[in-house]
Amino acid sequence: MADINPVYFDTEEGASLFNSADVKGHFWTICRFFISEKYLTYCGIASGVTILNSLGLEAPDEPQIYPYKMFTQDNLFTDEVLHRRRPLDVEKGGNTLEQLANILSVFDIQVDVCFADSMDVGACRNLLIETLKAPNRRVIIDFGRRTLGQKGNGHFSPLAAYHSGEDRFLLMDVARYKLPPCWVKGEMLYNAMTDIDSTSGRSRGFLVASNREVSPILPA
Amino acid sequence: MADINPVYFDTEEGASLFNSADVKGHFWTICRFFISEKYLTYCGIASGVTILNSLGLEAPDEPQIYPYKMFTQDNLFTDEVLHRRRPLDVEKGGNTLEQLANILSVFDIQVDVCFADSMDVGACRNLLIETLKAPNRRVIIDFGRRTLGQKGNGHFSPLAAYHSGEDRFLLMDVARYKLPPCWVKGEMLYNAMTDIDSTSGRSRGFLVASNREVSPILPA
Repeated sequence: MADINPVYFDTEEGASLFNSADVKGHFWTICRFFISEKYLTYCGIASGVTILNSLGLEAPDEPQIYPYKMFTQDNLFTDEVLHRRRPLDVEKGGNTLEQLANILSVFDIQVDVCFADSMDVGACRNLLIETLKAPNRRVIIDFGRRTLGQKGNGHFSPLAAYHSGEDRFLLMDVARYKLPPCWVKGEMLYNAMTDIDSTSGRSRGFLVASNREVSPILPA
Repeated sequence: MADINPVYFDTEEGASLFNSADVKGHFWTICRFFISEKYLTYCGIASGVTILNSLGLEAPDEPQIYPYKMFTQDNLFTDEVLHRRRPLDVEKGGNTLEQLANILSVFDIQVDVCFADSMDVGACRNLLIETLKAPNRRVIIDFGRRTLGQKGNGHFSPLAAYHSGEDRFLLMDVARYKLPPCWVKGEMLYNAMTDIDSTSGRSRGFLVASNREVSPILPA
């Protein structure tokens, strides 16, 4: 597999990568809660909803499925979230990495932000792999699509698995109407995260969400 | 694996079943389009939306993601569907197997309905496996939850894979806020489909949706 391009999930090569991937503990629950962004700019919100549900956090009530509960792209905007960021503003311009972290940190999780330009590719890869191995953490990637050869600009999606032999990460693209999940080479994923977000003026990167009982992902 | 109970997808045993399953071609695209029912009674609608998207049918416009398109639990109710069945009626009472087939047959697919009491367990198992092996078909199961040891009554969900060695089917439960996908023994799945739907007075079963170019699943 000399090709460095993304390998899409619903191809023979993608299926083969999944079957031989060695780090896929997060996948099973992310698959259960994987959703499509409801607006073109809701990639961060959809990624956040997916990982909050997959971490098993207590969700707000959802009238249509009462007495069951689940995070949705509507009820994520609790009173406390609304004081930080309005749906209207997300609809207009999406979120920066820090804005998304600020929204998610309202909930009962620890949120750590990692800018790709603060570390080299090796450190970044190791941190992502360690996180994917931890049952009580989840990763959301903030990346530039063009580096992956995809149309579009900045985008958020959860990460679900890693294949050590091929050095490829499985990115669960929440623009599901546009693209399937894909397996991305470690170095290419890193490069896509070093893209500059024109809104923040900073590099992209990733965030790690951890259940409270878990120790921080980064040294203090 | 002497236990006959359902094995849930996000357990070690479930992961092991997935890895060694031999028929899983449908899974990769169903995973991409898998959604949660938006009302407690929308299991048939959510299952239908999942398989229409996974068959790659041209979807109605969806304003929030324009110019992209995707079937949703709202836009599935096109004018032609509305003349057959109203959202209000589905919200109140869900769908019978024939009502769901009637809704889905509005779209550019062939829909075949199979009542479980019209065949024995062997014929049913074979038909499901053959369908799971066909790239241009999808299966939705109509089953009684109690036979599987689950709370609730009649329920629809897409089928995504089969494990020959263990004789287990992977059922992608659209009540995702309630239960993960699960691996169900062939005979137990058949028994759950022979449950009588009190609305129709008939047994449950399954439907097969096929792209038009595919020959019918059942002899005429």
